[in-house]
Amino acid sequence: MTLTGNLLIGRQSLRGTHGTLHAIDAATGTELEPAFGGATPQQLDHACALAWQAFDPYRETAPGRRADFLEAIAANILALGDALVDRCVAESGLPRARIEGERGRTVGQLRLFANMLRQGDFLELRVDPAQPERKPLPRPDLRLRQIPLGPVAVFGASNFPLAFSVAGGDTASALAAGCPVIVKAHPAHPGTSELVGRAIRKAVDDLDLPEGTFSLLFDAGLEIGQGLVADRRIKAVGFTGSRAGGMALMAIAAARAEPIPVYAEMSSVNPVLLFPHALASRAEAIGTAFADSLTLGAGQFCTNPGLVLAVAGDNLDRFLQAASARLATLPAATMLTPGIHRAYCAGVASLAGHAQVQTVARGPAGSATQGQAALFATDAAAFLADPALRHEVFGAAALVVRCRDLAEMRGVIDALEGQLTAALHLDDADHDAARAFLPALERLAGRLLVNGFGTGVEVGHAMVHGGPWPATSDGRSTSVGSLAIARFLRPVCYQDMPAGLLPASLCPDSPQRHSWRVDGKLPGCAG
Amino acid sequence: MTLTGNLLIGRQSLRGTHGTLHAIDAATGTELEPAFGGATPQQLDHACALAWQAFDPYRETAPGRRADFLEAIAANILALGDALVDRCVAESGLPRARIEGERGRTVGQLRLFANMLRQGDFLELRVDPAQPERKPLPRPDLRLRQIPLGPVAVFGASNFPLAFSVAGGDTASALAAGCPVIVKAHPAHPGTSELVGRAIRKAVDDLDLPEGTFSLLFDAGLEIGQGLVADRRIKAVGFTGSRAGGMALMAIAAARAEPIPVYAEMSSVNPVLLFPHALASRAEAIGTAFADSLTLGAGQFCTNPGLVLAVAGDNLDRFLQAASARLATLPAATMLTPGIHRAYCAGVASLAGHAQVQTVARGPAGSATQGQAALFATDAAAFLADPALRHEVFGAAALVVRCRDLAEMRGVIDALEGQLTAALHLDDADHDAARAFLPALERLAGRLLVNGFGTGVEVGHAMVHGGPWPATSDGRSTSVGSLAIARFLRPVCYQDMPAGLLPASLCPDSPQRHSWRVDGKLPGCAG
Repeated sequence: MTLTGNLLIGRQSLRGTHGTLHAIDAATGTELEPAFGGATPQQLDHACALAWQAFDPYRETAPGRRADFLEAIAANILALGDALVDRCVAESGLPRARIEGERGRTVGQLRLFANMLRQGDFLELRVDPAQPERKPLPRPDLRLRQIPLGPVAVFGASNFPLAFSVAGGDTASALAAGCPVIVKAHPAHPGTSELVGRAIRKAVDDLDLPEGTFSLLFDAGLEIGQGLVADRRIKAVGFTGSRAGGMALMAIAAARAEPIPVYAEMSSVNPVLLFPHALASRAEAIGTAFADSLTLGAGQFCTNPGLVLAVAGDNLDRFLQAASARLATLPAATMLTPGIHRAYCAGVASLAGHAQVQTVARGPAGSATQGQAALFATDAAAFLADPALRHEVFGAAALVVRCRDLAEMRGVIDALEGQLTAALHLDDADHDAARAFLPALERLAGRLLVNGFGTGVEVGHAMVHGGPWPATSDGRSTSVGSLAIARFLRPVCYQDMPAGLLPASLCPDSPQRHSWRVDGKLPGCAG
Repeated sequence: MTLTGNLLIGRQSLRGTHGTLHAIDAATGTELEPAFGGATPQQLDHACALAWQAFDPYRETAPGRRADFLEAIAANILALGDALVDRCVAESGLPRARIEGERGRTVGQLRLFANMLRQGDFLELRVDPAQPERKPLPRPDLRLRQIPLGPVAVFGASNFPLAFSVAGGDTASALAAGCPVIVKAHPAHPGTSELVGRAIRKAVDDLDLPEGTFSLLFDAGLEIGQGLVADRRIKAVGFTGSRAGGMALMAIAAARAEPIPVYAEMSSVNPVLLFPHALASRAEAIGTAFADSLTLGAGQFCTNPGLVLAVAGDNLDRFLQAASARLATLPAATMLTPGIHRAYCAGVASLAGHAQVQTVARGPAGSATQGQAALFATDAAAFLADPALRHEVFGAAALVVRCRDLAEMRGVIDALEGQLTAALHLDDADHDAARAFLPALERLAGRLLVNGFGTGVEVGHAMVHGGPWPATSDGRSTSVGSLAIARFLRPVCYQDMPAGLLPASLCPDSPQRHSWRVDGKLPGCAG
């Protein structure tokens, strides 16, 4: 399984000739072989041309065939075995068990969408039968299905080298929808990207799918990623990363002759609300669990709990003591890249030096590439006075905001920008207090969770991993779970179309007929 | 039913003091009384503050109560009787029968959404039950519902003074979703707007809904409309109008600290494809029906058939002769506003003076405010050479493109921008030829219709009135039909939320339980 450092453009493994990039061993800071060649604008154009050619034939493959494709990708990823895990551990600095778990999640996501395709009801089929006798005018026959938007650009994420990169959630949902995908690999894990890209490539070949169904590009700078979003043949973008990066892609997409949707998952501090009775009864347990969640994966999760809100007092102090004690036992962990490590250290230093912020605890110090956990505290007045305190510090750092009372805590919530998650720790006796917060929290976040933390995002049908700006660029969407497919679909109506020309799913003898919504009514019993 | 010329801000009828505007009698060009006062920035701020206050309580009203509200609006509009019809005819220049028909459509839309609310399944509820025994980790309980985005700004449309204005499709779907609405009235029909606004206002009062559920603003310039889209408390925009207008609103929305979705329906020439066998067998019938559709409502429909594609030859000439003969019998009709009339005349003059365009027919001349129908022809090479020929001329003007063969016709389709509709006229013997066009047409338009024309948009569950850019700003949406509600909703996930804190629709004893999608499975038989 030798890495080539080549681009995958359609069926070809091609050397990029527009600069080079190397992976860095995250733990040691040394360069890893081989050199990866950056794509030229001509190679980008070639990949886009192939994706466009593939779009019409690929989108009309039977859903069952696309399900086979996704399952073949999953099998091919597993077949890479330790070669994939070893390379991914080296490039990301993440522990082996985490990478194995993430591989399981990646494979699980692909299979979830495969199951959904076999079930067939993601098409949201609707049929309003003709009423030729209606007065004053007959009603035409109207049939609606969802079709894919077109080729999708996916940007690999630094913090999920498998589950949100080459064959991650964006790719899986786009391929399931019927969209060809061009991945711009994250420069921090090009070797992992090549291996996974080849797993996809093999599945394309084995299932004899259109050549341009998938391509993988490396970018030695920013030009290829930007050019990908600007290309007229690309019709949507999936991105997980920084706010600045997401906004740059949004600006490019909005400035096109044909603007396109960008699904960017950008930043979130994921407020954790500790309600008084829960804090009184379980401060130590919550504090310990909080420290575990904060440091998971060196804190490099979009759903990392970066902000804690509670009423000041002895019980909050108990929480802080327990969290501090736990943090002291959790070793520093290697961060994904030197750049992320530098940004984390700068963010921590900024909080530590803030006149209104107290350093409550630090985790054990580590090596020069490891992130040392940090727990800070301030009060609500200071938090509200300085918007800089609301910014995400990507890594295992959190800020606890001491509030005078629940009313002030509510004021802090109202001052926050959109979030991926909000966690509520509560006992039965807290229900009335919590209920008063729910409307504001629903407006704030895509997921509200009780007596837990946002890390560990379940991949299911009812999951939302999204949220109002700036958590994501489009708060109407989720990037995790089966509903993620909706991002890449648009409705088309067929009016008075003869059966011989209708898409198979809308024909009178359609196998998906059981899932039709007829005259607006949900499908129900056959009888 | 005396018109006041006042703004409706929450419960108050307030005089706008920021300039004035008058309606113009479309047929005579004379000013109509009274003067309408334009809103000040302070009045705009007041309306937004009320809408924001109303959002949380309004969105949690029971769906059945919102259904009552929509039905009360419908009843109140009908109760306005001839006063509304008279004023609307005067302001729009549209025939009485058309306005009565449009009133029926407006009322029908409100009732469609009311029925949908009573049915309850628009919430797209999803439940993934907990699996406490799952290994290696238990699965949490996940429940998903859709919640409304927030207060919505609706811009009244010139060409649908009832069905796409104050209580039109955008307002009905936003109110149904649970969003308060602030309407910026179209300056061409302020009197109609005031009357309908008062009908909504009365329903808000009678049902004791939050004061800010609805407000109506007049704008003596552009400042208030722009300020409305820029206001931080507005979370989505509905607009039907020009491409320039829609793009201006999109730019404002994208530049906000929190960008918001704009649903703008902008421009479309709605290609009509005449296939050879249909043309051979029915050229005269199609030509006659085409002329009728072209001139309906003085051609002032978004779905007006402005472009006809066919293979050159005797049969196409028969079509042109029949269409010309019919046009000669259809009188010129008053256009909506002097500005629209001027733009129509300029567009027609530009086509008439184009070196590669022939004037095939003109309808009868009319008065100085009336639009004289116009039918032009060119060939595919000329059409492809000049992008200006692809632009919409809003009104009863169409361009027929003579193609050498079906391959050239396909080339013309590939050169078009996104469309609301594409119409195919075909006989059984045309099916193979038509089938080859379908992929391109699906990519091109939101609705494909056979042996008809796009005018007369059915309001149902399977309708799509939308399409790729620049037909609309967001091709993932429809502005007509029950699916229009999806524009104003976003998903929220509740994880391990105790029953006592769950929204009613997701509680174990929910009346909407029959519509839950459990573990991704569509609701089905109870047994």
